[in-house]
Amino acid sequence: MIDRPPEFDAAFQEKLTTLFLWRRDVRHFRPDPVDPDLLRHLLEIAALAPSVGNSQPWRFVQVQDAARRAKVVANFEQANAEALADYKGEQAKLYAALKLAGLKEAPVHLAIFCDEGTAQGHGLGRRTMPEMLDYSAVMAVYGFWLAARAHGLGAGWVSILDPAAVCRDLDVPAAWRLIAYLCVGFPAEDHIDPELERRGWEHRRPAGDFIVRR
Amino acid sequence: MIDRPPEFDAAFQEKLTTLFLWRRDVRHFRPDPVDPDLLRHLLEIAALAPSVGNSQPWRFVQVQDAARRAKVVANFEQANAEALADYKGEQAKLYAALKLAGLKEAPVHLAIFCDEGTAQGHGLGRRTMPEMLDYSAVMAVYGFWLAARAHGLGAGWVSILDPAAVCRDLDVPAAWRLIAYLCVGFPAEDHIDPELERRGWEHRRPAGDFIVRR
Repeated sequence: MIDRPPEFDAAFQEKLTTLFLWRRDVRHFRPDPVDPDLLRHLLEIAALAPSVGNSQPWRFVQVQDAARRAKVVANFEQANAEALADYKGEQAKLYAALKLAGLKEAPVHLAIFCDEGTAQGHGLGRRTMPEMLDYSAVMAVYGFWLAARAHGLGAGWVSILDPAAVCRDLDVPAAWRLIAYLCVGFPAEDHIDPELERRGWEHRRPAGDFIVRR
Repeated sequence: MIDRPPEFDAAFQEKLTTLFLWRRDVRHFRPDPVDPDLLRHLLEIAALAPSVGNSQPWRFVQVQDAARRAKVVANFEQANAEALADYKGEQAKLYAALKLAGLKEAPVHLAIFCDEGTAQGHGLGRRTMPEMLDYSAVMAVYGFWLAARAHGLGAGWVSILDPAAVCRDLDVPAAWRLIAYLCVGFPAEDHIDPELERRGWEHRRPAGDFIVRR
């Protein structure tokens, strides 16, 4: 695996496309536990993400304590109620009917932070775009997500949260910024289309709509 | 590919790990052109990234005009000179010797923006973490990058740029925020270790260093 540059054949390329097509934001989980060795492997994959200046700013917190998890659930429920209040009429009804997190069922809670205080990388690449540090941690999330799906696991990114409260409730260092809170486990269903599209919240546009030339 | 949920076997999982291991930030390119159909395919993969509320905020700009490319090169050279001035002694010498972008050689310049003004997604998931919109576009970058590597292409993310000047020089809508400026092409060399590590700028730490439990 590491002795010489790999070649990726058409069969792999096609399967990789399939992986991207079937990755989903999962909110419906089976209760089956996740093998700790698999979780560790997925975190190692996450840590292979690009990082600005080789800063590796990602910090992974496995949230195992029931009391801490309950605080995150309460955090989500309050933030979600507040979000619902922003919508009116049919849109409010539709929002209220959406299941936007699988926090109670997912066997694994994983919070990903960015260590804004890290000296690693010596600031390279961050002078004019300091947000690159956060972006590095975001890529670690996506790497985890894709690798998880390749192992039959689903992940759901919960952003309907007060991030400052998550930092406090998980007792992380002051310099850590919450990037993502993930629910992870075996999905109850597999779909090729996003739940938000299936439920009529928002449709996807084709990729060509997003491409321009200059 | 789309009729029923896929299964990913151990051989695919291993090859996927190899892909993550050998993805690199590439700054040394061969001049060979990139097939436009392949580039289009990679952008379609990029657009399969997760996006908050199904907002799909990524906007892909293929920078083909020589004058615009020259402005980006000048932007980089100025920002890089300013960055160099922040370092002293041996570190300044080392920084000055690094090749931090392949803008002049890469056959493809691709700028990825986030449309901060998009109504798509109706704000879902962005109320307490508005940065989720940018993060969605970041994941599109990583999806592109991984798929590119699976097709033998390399990408390098150039963040040593004044982002406001890039927006101006590429004449994009005012609501678009620069997320990434990528050099894309066939790499002149393949490596399993990052160039910044190989050149002594910064070493990588093992994944276990980044994992905590709560």
